[in-house]
Amino acid sequence: MAKITFIGLGNMGGPMAANLLKAGHQVTVFDLSQAAVEALVADGARTAGSARDAAVGAECVITMLPAGQHVEAVYLGEDGLLAALPQGTLVIDSSTIAPETARDVAEAARARGLAFMDAPVSGGVGGARAGTLTFICGGEADTFERVRPILEGMGKNIFHAGPHGSGQVAKICNNMLLAILMTGTSEALALGVRNGLDPAVLSEIMKQSSGGNWALNVYNPWPGVMDGVPASRGYEGGFLVKLMAKDLGLAFDNAVRNQAAIPMGSLARNLFQLHAGQGNEDLDFSSIQRLYHPDAGA
Amino acid sequence: MAKITFIGLGNMGGPMAANLLKAGHQVTVFDLSQAAVEALVADGARTAGSARDAAVGAECVITMLPAGQHVEAVYLGEDGLLAALPQGTLVIDSSTIAPETARDVAEAARARGLAFMDAPVSGGVGGARAGTLTFICGGEADTFERVRPILEGMGKNIFHAGPHGSGQVAKICNNMLLAILMTGTSEALALGVRNGLDPAVLSEIMKQSSGGNWALNVYNPWPGVMDGVPASRGYEGGFLVKLMAKDLGLAFDNAVRNQAAIPMGSLARNLFQLHAGQGNEDLDFSSIQRLYHPDAGA
Amino acid sequence: MAKITFIGLGNMGGPMAANLLKAGHQVTVFDLSQAAVEALVADGARTAGSARDAAVGAECVITMLPAGQHVEAVYLGEDGLLAALPQGTLVIDSSTIAPETARDVAEAARARGLAFMDAPVSGGVGGARAGTLTFICGGEADTFERVRPILEGMGKNIFHAGPHGSGQVAKICNNMLLAILMTGTSEALALGVRNGLDPAVLSEIMKQSSGGNWALNVYNPWPGVMDGVPASRGYEGGFLVKLMAKDLGLAFDNAVRNQAAIPMGSLARNLFQLHAGQGNEDLDFSSIQRLYHPDAGA
Amino acid sequence: MAKITFIGLGNMGGPMAANLLKAGHQVTVFDLSQAAVEALVADGARTAGSARDAAVGAECVITMLPAGQHVEAVYLGEDGLLAALPQGTLVIDSSTIAPETARDVAEAARARGLAFMDAPVSGGVGGARAGTLTFICGGEADTFERVRPILEGMGKNIFHAGPHGSGQVAKICNNMLLAILMTGTSEALALGVRNGLDPAVLSEIMKQSSGGNWALNVYNPWPGVMDGVPASRGYEGGFLVKLMAKDLGLAFDNAVRNQAAIPMGSLARNLFQLHAGQGNEDLDFSSIQRLYHPDAGA
Repeated sequence: MAKITFIGLGNMGGPMAANLLKAGHQVTVFDLSQAAVEALVADGARTAGSARDAAVGAECVITMLPAGQHVEAVYLGEDGLLAALPQGTLVIDSSTIAPETARDVAEAARARGLAFMDAPVSGGVGGARAGTLTFICGGEADTFERVRPILEGMGKNIFHAGPHGSGQVAKICNNMLLAILMTGTSEALALGVRNGLDPAVLSEIMKQSSGGNWALNVYNPWPGVMDGVPASRGYEGGFLVKLMAKDLGLAFDNAVRNQAAIPMGSLARNLFQLHAGQGNEDLDFSSIQRLYHPDAGA
Repeated sequence: MAKITFIGLGNMGGPMAANLLKAGHQVTVFDLSQAAVEALVADGARTAGSARDAAVGAECVITMLPAGQHVEAVYLGEDGLLAALPQGTLVIDSSTIAPETARDVAEAARARGLAFMDAPVSGGVGGARAGTLTFICGGEADTFERVRPILEGMGKNIFHAGPHGSGQVAKICNNMLLAILMTGTSEALALGVRNGLDPAVLSEIMKQSSGGNWALNVYNPWPGVMDGVPASRGYEGGFLVKLMAKDLGLAFDNAVRNQAAIPMGSLARNLFQLHAGQGNEDLDFSSIQRLYHPDAGA
Repeated sequence: MAKITFIGLGNMGGPMAANLLKAGHQVTVFDLSQAAVEALVADGARTAGSARDAAVGAECVITMLPAGQHVEAVYLGEDGLLAALPQGTLVIDSSTIAPETARDVAEAARARGLAFMDAPVSGGVGGARAGTLTFICGGEADTFERVRPILEGMGKNIFHAGPHGSGQVAKICNNMLLAILMTGTSEALALGVRNGLDPAVLSEIMKQSSGGNWALNVYNPWPGVMDGVPASRGYEGGFLVKLMAKDLGLAFDNAVRNQAAIPMGSLARNLFQLHAGQGNEDLDFSSIQRLYHPDAGA
Repeated sequence: MAKITFIGLGNMGGPMAANLLKAGHQVTVFDLSQAAVEALVADGARTAGSARDAAVGAECVITMLPAGQHVEAVYLGEDGLLAALPQGTLVIDSSTIAPETARDVAEAARARGLAFMDAPVSGGVGGARAGTLTFICGGEADTFERVRPILEGMGKNIFHAGPHGSGQVAKICNNMLLAILMTGTSEALALGVRNGLDPAVLSEIMKQSSGGNWALNVYNPWPGVMDGVPASRGYEGGFLVKLMAKDLGLAFDNAVRNQAAIPMGSLARNLFQLHAGQGNEDLDFSSIQRLYHPDAGA
């Protein structure tokens, strides 16, 4: 079992740190929210007055932060963590950020003799709580072998996508594809319903045919077709439209840097943005169904 | 076992009729291609000099034709089959055509005391040969019970989508979604490769994450990632670009009639059309990968 | 001056017929709406109990009808006008319909020795009233010379696009481009406003730069930028969203028939359809601005 | 007449500096390309060994550089120009860069007591040579009055779009709209040609109708329709596909930062990117016509 410092205890980071505690690790936590810290301390975590103090003595530091600028702020600069950690410390960033930022942090870590890995996750708040997240890692192969047992305390599938930044790239590609699947599935369901079909029947047919995809399998966007998904509770909770829009913004940025054409992903991003602009940014992303059929499920 | 007349012995209809023979039915076939007819006769089928003659004495007529105008020509009008069949005959059309045409034929059949069902298929030439097609049926519930045992001789999943035309509607929705999945998957893979990722590694990650879909499961569009798929044999065979374009044309037509918005399906259709216009209409539809990455797999 | 029968006295046809009267022609009118007929009779028109009776003695018949099926009903069949008109009569259809329908009517007219021309218009209700419509004609060159002086009584620009159906094709192309211009202009204005720019200033800059187009010149979609346009009166009147959607449906149909890729036009069509589906189908089409910026001008 | 230092003598900057000389200004130039410098010296310009030396004594500094990083490198930092210029100097950047970068430079200039203006141009190499460029300015109103007479030596229309960064924003909006117009016009022409229409006739009709736009007026994309445009010389020269792609990349970046939906602009960007990826990045941007009709004009 390892001495782990976990920084960033939001909707995702909180349950992830809790699972590390359950797995038997010695966990020190830090977050700007005192309430979030206290919840973990009640579960047995230690804490400290700053991220830097929390990292003293850690064998492994894990961060789960909202965006690239927060990751840069925590790790880089004269006051950053990288300057304070002893050589050999394992550093894992599970935030979803631009690959370029991940590579910048990796390079700074390498220069200090630290082993860095970008390890963004897929699976949402539900997966974070259940400890069934997917981790998509970028970095050296031997670092991957070191981080794997730690990540297994929080997730089920641990992938090594390639060198530094590859975890972020794969996450961006996956979430762009997810946006396309969800939008396309909503569109196909709405077309069927306009023709008089039952959305549950059509969902079942497409799920078992060549239209089969993750949305139809576990996250059906039409209200009432599937129990326990956001669509069946007014699109509350889940993966918010504004977070999907953020991830698609990373795809836009990446496509521009790499001169890549992403027509389908761009259209999905713009449909989510139109949807967000109509007051839906805090609903689950499967609420894109309503853009196609305003009274879906009503 | 039934006396079945099968009309339309192309790449799909030929093996479908052969499977009916294997299942023990007495099958009479007709096609304008004498070679196609002879191949089935060698397998034990009977034949006749015209579609009308072939249908004499049939308990069930099945048609598998290229487009709506052929279906209208075979069934409707004074010389059409409907005018010649005795009351109670089962009539199954497995062509992919507009729902309106299916409803027109259904109505004409009903007026003559015949039981009609639209039953388009999913699964391609491979599924037709293996007898593992999916049938998506539209029509009366009791007719569905009558056609099911016959269709089971040619397919694995037999769905009842709803009333007349619903089989066609569900097929249109499914294939529109398939076009979106394949285009989106190709786009995500190309974006990853431009960032230096291995397409096989990225495929595996997305398949097991929220980007999972039919294309990643059984029909990967990147050459060499999966054995036995068109992408790994130069995009030969499979489901041709021009046939996907035809199905997406039905989606366009349906969306206009129903005043439905289909932005993702429309974009996929136009990308396939651009791809077709660059000389690729006779390649498998997963060759859309090349629109994103001209030297994919090279 | 000619003896003209004008059939179809809606928002467009009514003022068009009135302008023919002003130009000195002897005009007989027919419409299913008695009120519409009476308004023209008050202006000096004659009328009759049916379209067929109204056409007796006409040198020229003009129709302005909502859609292709109405045009077919009026002209074709045993009770249709074509069967009743004497050889040599000039027949002009100014409805916006599919080119194939126009060609069918043209062929039927030719077989009866009549001179047909498809002559859809551009310019809207304002142009119809002011007599400044644009006519886009398809048919024989000598027929074009015969119809030109009559059309000049209702319009300013009279174009000959090519053989039968070409008027409809050019109208479809123009209106698809118009939809693209209006949507693109709204998008550019909304982007500028989100960045803090004044929409009037940005409009002026783009109008005089390479972004210049008809919408910026005479039909600015941002409320208050331009006087006298629908945007400055709550998007009332003008060219309704549902009519633009109808024209874009013709473009979809044409693109499928001709295997043409129309990605931009398709996207514009789907944005208008989403907009219509949110309760805006009876607003002017420049209200697409609100899809981008819900409180534009508020 | 003013003492002006002009930095960046590429295809645009070279002729712009030459026009300042013709207008009677005393111009000192600098560029990393010695050949570019010498051409201007032959026209009467002075030069110096570095940008910083070239700026000594200048009343006004103008930069015309490829991208934001070059602008930052020239102006900011301890070795940057801003640190070397005396208070009150006028600083004009005509590069096309992100508004955020322009605002950063403006802020740094303000802190040093300098008057900065972002003033990107429209009009291309032809406009630069002819002195007919459009300048789109962002900055203080009194600074605008100071720069106007200088810019009039290089351009015809001088717009004040708003505060710092607004010049760049308006340029981004305009060029996004231009991309939409050019793509849409190409699409409409290709659709007409597929229907058998003459592209010159269709161009004329749409130009005088509601499809009218800058592309139809002065930059027709179909080969042979208009003399003297890139389309009529094999799409050589003009505004390169790769430069349009760069500008659309700025639009993507801006839309992400501002959470703006830009579906039409995004689609145009992706079509240009697909076109560039097929080997056309060094052709004029009106060559997008060939994506729609590979043998346009052949």
